Amino acid sequence: MILELINGPEDIKKLTGKELDILRQEIRDFLIGKISRTGGHLASNLGVVELTMAIYLVFDLPKDKIIWDVGHQSYTHKILSGRKGEFDDLRQYGGMSGFPKRKESPCDAFDTGHSSTSISAGLGLAQARDVSGQDHFVVSVIGDGALTGGMAYEALNNAARMKKNFIIILNDNNMSISENVGGMSRYLNGIRTGDGYLDLKKYVTNVLSRIPVIGDELIDKISRTKNGIKQLLIPGMLFENMGITYLGPVDGHDVKALARALKEAKKLDHAVLVHVITKKGKGYEPAEKNPSRFHGVEPFDVLTGESKKEKKNPSYTDVFSKTICHLAEKDPKITAVTAAMPDGTGLKRFSRLYPDRFFDVGIAEEHAVTSAAGMAAGGLKPVVAVYSSFLQRGFDQILHDVCIQNLPVVFAVDRAGLVGSDGETHQGIFDLSFLSAIPNMSIFAPKNLWELKAGLEFAVSFGGPFAIRYPRGEAYRGLKEFNAPVEYGRGEMLYEEKDIALLAVGSMVSTGEHVREKLKSEGWSCTLANGRFVKPFDEELADRLAKNHWLIVTMEENVLQGGYGLMVTRYIHEHYPHVKVMNIAIPDGYVEHGNVSLLRKGLGIDSDSVIWRMKKEYLDTERQNMEWKTINTEEKKA
Amino acid sequence: MILELINGPEDIKKLTGKELDILRQEIRDFLIGKISRTGGHLASNLGVVELTMAIYLVFDLPKDKIIWDVGHQSYTHKILSGRKGEFDDLRQYGGMSGFPKRKESPCDAFDTGHSSTSISAGLGLAQARDVSGQDHFVVSVIGDGALTGGMAYEALNNAARMKKNFIIILNDNNMSISENVGGMSRYLNGIRTGDGYLDLKKYVTNVLSRIPVIGDELIDKISRTKNGIKQLLIPGMLFENMGITYLGPVDGHDVKALARALKEAKKLDHAVLVHVITKKGKGYEPAEKNPSRFHGVEPFDVLTGESKKEKKNPSYTDVFSKTICHLAEKDPKITAVTAAMPDGTGLKRFSRLYPDRFFDVGIAEEHAVTSAAGMAAGGLKPVVAVYSSFLQRGFDQILHDVCIQNLPVVFAVDRAGLVGSDGETHQGIFDLSFLSAIPNMSIFAPKNLWELKAGLEFAVSFGGPFAIRYPRGEAYRGLKEFNAPVEYGRGEMLYEEKDIALLAVGSMVSTGEHVREKLKSEGWSCTLANGRFVKPFDEELADRLAKNHWLIVTMEENVLQGGYGLMVTRYIHEHYPHVKVMNIAIPDGYVEHGNVSLLRKGLGIDSDSVIWRMKKEYLDTERQNMEWKTINTEEKKA
Repeated sequence: MILELINGPEDIKKLTGKELDILRQEIRDFLIGKISRTGGHLASNLGVVELTMAIYLVFDLPKDKIIWDVGHQSYTHKILSGRKGEFDDLRQYGGMSGFPKRKESPCDAFDTGHSSTSISAGLGLAQARDVSGQDHFVVSVIGDGALTGGMAYEALNNAARMKKNFIIILNDNNMSISENVGGMSRYLNGIRTGDGYLDLKKYVTNVLSRIPVIGDELIDKISRTKNGIKQLLIPGMLFENMGITYLGPVDGHDVKALARALKEAKKLDHAVLVHVITKKGKGYEPAEKNPSRFHGVEPFDVLTGESKKEKKNPSYTDVFSKTICHLAEKDPKITAVTAAMPDGTGLKRFSRLYPDRFFDVGIAEEHAVTSAAGMAAGGLKPVVAVYSSFLQRGFDQILHDVCIQNLPVVFAVDRAGLVGSDGETHQGIFDLSFLSAIPNMSIFAPKNLWELKAGLEFAVSFGGPFAIRYPRGEAYRGLKEFNAPVEYGRGEMLYEEKDIALLAVGSMVSTGEHVREKLKSEGWSCTLANGRFVKPFDEELADRLAKNHWLIVTMEENVLQGGYGLMVTRYIHEHYPHVKVMNIAIPDGYVEHGNVSLLRKGLGIDSDSVIWRMKKEYLDTERQNMEWKTINTEEKKA
Repeated sequence: MILELINGPEDIKKLTGKELDILRQEIRDFLIGKISRTGGHLASNLGVVELTMAIYLVFDLPKDKIIWDVGHQSYTHKILSGRKGEFDDLRQYGGMSGFPKRKESPCDAFDTGHSSTSISAGLGLAQARDVSGQDHFVVSVIGDGALTGGMAYEALNNAARMKKNFIIILNDNNMSISENVGGMSRYLNGIRTGDGYLDLKKYVTNVLSRIPVIGDELIDKISRTKNGIKQLLIPGMLFENMGITYLGPVDGHDVKALARALKEAKKLDHAVLVHVITKKGKGYEPAEKNPSRFHGVEPFDVLTGESKKEKKNPSYTDVFSKTICHLAEKDPKITAVTAAMPDGTGLKRFSRLYPDRFFDVGIAEEHAVTSAAGMAAGGLKPVVAVYSSFLQRGFDQILHDVCIQNLPVVFAVDRAGLVGSDGETHQGIFDLSFLSAIPNMSIFAPKNLWELKAGLEFAVSFGGPFAIRYPRGEAYRGLKEFNAPVEYGRGEMLYEEKDIALLAVGSMVSTGEHVREKLKSEGWSCTLANGRFVKPFDEELADRLAKNHWLIVTMEENVLQGGYGLMVTRYIHEHYPHVKVMNIAIPDGYVEHGNVSLLRKGLGIDSDSVIWRMKKEYLDTERQNMEWKTINTEEKKA
C-alpha cells in the first residue's frame, strides 16, 4: 500500500508518477471504506482527491496556508497531512472533526463550516503575511456552489487589490449540495462547455464577422451586437474584468495538469483564480450518479450504495415538507424559499408541485430573507426554510428588512438545537437568542409532530414575522393527546400538579416528560407545561405556575444567554420573588460534534442530568426540609 | 414656481421640456435650502435629481414599484410623490423620515436604510407580481458603492433568472460614502472612462490586431493575450456574462437621455441593468468639491458651505481615532479594518499614518469580519471599526469565523445606542444582545472618554474576541476622577452607599449619575456602579450590591431582551431573591428618528423618566412603608 507511506504533508512528494496514480485509487478506496462505516461527507471528498494531491505536491504545508471553503471536502487533506489513523472516529464524540480545525493540526490553517468564507479568510491570512513580512503561499479552495454566496464576491472584489500572490482555486463541479443556480453558474457552465482558449483569435475573428456595423445609438441594435459578442466567452473574462487573473479550465482529475497550473499560479504577484473542473462523487458509481444523496451520508453498503440505517419514522423535515405543500394547495399566496437546500429542508416536494412559487436562491441566506421580505411586501406569504445555523447569516436582513416593516415572512427553522456530527459550526443553538432580540418577531417551538403542523398552519395565516423552530431528526410522536389549538402567545398546560413545575419549549418538552415521570416515581408532585411560544412568552401560564409551585424549571435547547429562560426568570423575579427558578439551557460555549444523546448528556440537558442537577441544587435540600418538618411535626404530636 | 405644481406622482408628467429644466433647478434650490436648515443627506440627493425625474416621467407610481437602495437619496422622490410640505420636519422627532417608509406613502414600495438590499427586495416584489399575475414594473435603484455589498451580488445572480421585466438602475457616482474600492469599482471606472459602445467594432478589431497567434498552451502567453483582450472593455460585459442585459452608460444629468434609456429597459422580458453616471453633490459647488463631507450634514451656511454647529468637544469617534493610532505606533501587529467608512469610524487618520496596515473593504461587513479573522489567525491584532447597526451584517461571521477559533479580533462598535435622526434602521440598540449570545466574546462599554482609551488599550492586548461599544457624539467628560485600571470582567464602584444601587453600563453611567444626584437630594441613599463589562458581567460586584441594597436598577442603552439587565437579574434571583431588580433598557420595539434626548425621554430611559419610574414602581411604596414604620415607632415610643 502506497497509503502506508503517507504520514505527513511532505511524504507525497517522495512518490513517483506511477505511485501517485496508485495512491489516488487507494485514497478513494480508503474514503469509501471508512465513510461507509462512520457516515460523513462522501461525494465532495471523492471529487477533490487529485486536486488535494496536486496541492500537496506544489505547496509546502503547514508553511503554506490552505483554506477549504465549507471544509467538508477536506478528508483527503486530512489523510495527506497525517491523520488517516483518525478516520475510524470521524465525526464521533471525542473523535476527529469532519471539518478543518486549527486545534487538530497545524496543516489546518483556518476553521470552516459555513459556506463562502474561504476567500475572505485567505485574504486575511495573506494580508497578515504581507504586514508581517513573511513569505509563504495562501490558497483558498472554493466550490462553485459557495461562489453564489455574497461574501465570496465581497472577497473577490477585495482580492483584486492584492499586490502579492494570492491563489483562489475554483473547484467547479457544477453543484452546491444540490444543483447550482443563477447567473454565475450559467456563466461557468459556458466556460466548461466552451472550446477553451486555444483557438481564441480564430474564434474572436469569427464572431466579429457576424457583428453589424453600428452607425447610430439605437439600443436594440447595440443589444444585438452584444449578444453576438457574448458568444466570445473568453474563459474567465468575468474574473479578469474584476482584476483577477484567470487560469483554466483545468481537468480536476489530472494530477499533472493540476500541478502545472498551480505552479504557474505561484508565479504571479497578484490574485489569481485557477478554474478546476471536477466531478462530485468521482470514482464511486452510486455517488457519481446521485451526488446530492451522497453529499452527507449515514453508514451505507459499499456494493449497493444503500443506506444501512433502517427506515425511520418521519422527521420534522418530512412533516414540514408535507404540511407546507398541503397549506400551499389551499393558499396560492404561499411561496417557498430555500438557500440551496431543497433536499435538506424538505422543499423538494414543494418545488415539484408548485414550481412557479418555489425559489432556490443559491447559498445566499441574505438574499433569501430580503427577497422574501419583498415578496411579502408584494402581498405574498413567503416561507423561508433554512437551518438554524445558516439563518445566522440573515440576522440583519430579518431585523432590518422583514421586522421593521412587520412583514408576514415565515421562517421554518430546521435543525434547531443540537445537530450532532457536523459539530460546532452547525449546532442550531443560538436562534432563540438572536431572533427574540428582534422586535415584531414571534417564535414558536413545537413539542411534537402534530404541533409542528398546527404551528405552521398558524404561522402562514398570522400576518407578521414568524419563526417556527424544530430539531433535526425524527419527529416526536409522544404527547399526542395534548393538542390544544394554537393561540397567539399562549402555552399549553400538559400535566398540572403542584410543588415543582417544568416549563419547557420544543424538543425539551419530551425531556420534561421523562424528568417528570422519574420525579413522580420518587414521590414528587410535578407539573409539566409546554411553553410553545418563546416570544411572546405566556405570562399567564407563568402566573399559573408561580402560584402553585415553589420551583419552576425552564428548559430549552438553546444557549442560556438571550434565550427563553431568562425572560421567564425576570418575570418571576419581578412578580414572584419567592419562587425559585432553575434554567436548563446550553451553557455559554460551542458544542463539538458527536452523537446528540452524548452531547446532551455532556451539556447536562438530558433527563438524567436535569434530574441530577435539580436534586443537587434544590430537591435534596427541600426533601431534607420536608423530612425535618415531618419529623418535627410527628415529634410534636408525640 | 414650477415646484408648486408638483403635489403628486403624476404631476411631473404634465410639464413641458422647458418646465422640466426649470424644475430640476428648483428642486436643487429647495433641497439645499431645506437641508441647510434641518441637516440631512445632501450630496447623494443632489446627484439623483434628474434620475428621479426621469423615473417619474417613465413609470407610474405608486403602481410601479421603485426601491431606493440605502434610501438616503430619496428626497427628490419624496418631493415628486407629494411630500415637499414635510421637509421642514425632515428627520425631526415626529417628522418625515430621511429614508423611504411604506407607512409614509404608497409611493414608498419598500423601506431601506442599510446598503445593498434593493435588488433582493425588488426581485421579491417582481416575483410577487408574477406569482399574483399582476402587471407593473419594479425598479431597484442602487449605487455603485452598494454594489460592493455581497447581498447585491447574490441578488444579481438571481436576477439573471428572471423571465419577466425587472429593472436595475446602477447610479454610478464612483463613490460610496467615501471613495469606492475594489475590482468592481475599477471595472466600472473602465466603462466610465472608455469610449463607450459606439465604435465597438472598430475598437475590437483594433485590439485584436495586437493579439499574437496562439499555437501552444503556455499559460503566460495566454495571459498576455487576455490582457490585450481585456482592453476590449465591451461596456457591461461583466453583467452580460452573468445573464443581465446591460444598457449604458447614460448621462445621469440628462433627463431626456435617461427617460429614453428607461423606456428601452421597459421593453425587455428579463432583467436589465441601466448604467447611469451621476455626480454626487451636483449643482452645489461645496458638495461637488467635497461630497464625502456633504454626505450627511448638520445645518450649514448655504453661501459658504460651513457647518452652523459650533465646534464641539471630541466625540467618542475622535477619541477612538487618536487612541488606535497611538496604540498602533507601539504595536506593529495592529491593523484596522473598515467597511467603507474611514471617515465615519475615525480611521482616516490611521489610514494616513499606517496605509499598509489599513483595509477599507467596501460596504462588505461580512468580509470585513472574516478577513479580520484571517489576519488574527495569521498573527495580527486586527481592529474592526464599525457602526453597531451595520455590525448586524457580520453576526454569523463573528460567531462562526472569529469566536469559534477564539481569535483576537477587536470590534470597535461605534454609534452603539440611540443614533438620532437616521432612525429605525440605524439605531445601535441590539449589539449587546447579539454579541453576548456568542461564546468566547467579551464586551466592554466605557462610561467616558478616558475609559474608552483604557478599554481600547486593554482590548488590543487581550488575546481573544473583544467588542468595545460606545455611542455616537460627544465623549462624556464627567466622572474623570474614577479611573480604576481595567481588569477583565470587573466593574467599578463609583459611589457606594446603601438601600438603592444603580448598576449601569456605557452611556447610562452618566444617566445614573444624574439619577443618583436627584435621589440624594430627596434624601435617598443611593449607590452608583459602573458595570464596564457586559460580558462577562461582574458577579462579585453584583454580590456587593445585593448585600447592602434592597433595590438594584440595571441601566443599559440596548433592548431589554438578551441584554445586560437580564443576566444580572437571573444572578440576583438565584442568589438574592429578596433583592428587587428593576431593568432600565429599551423596550421591545424599533425606535424612530429624532433628537436623541427626545427619544430617550420617549423611551423612558432619560434620568427624569428613570426617577419617575423608580418612584412609581418602588420608591413611593417604600417611602410610605418607611414613614409608616417611623410613625409606628414614634407612636410606640410615645
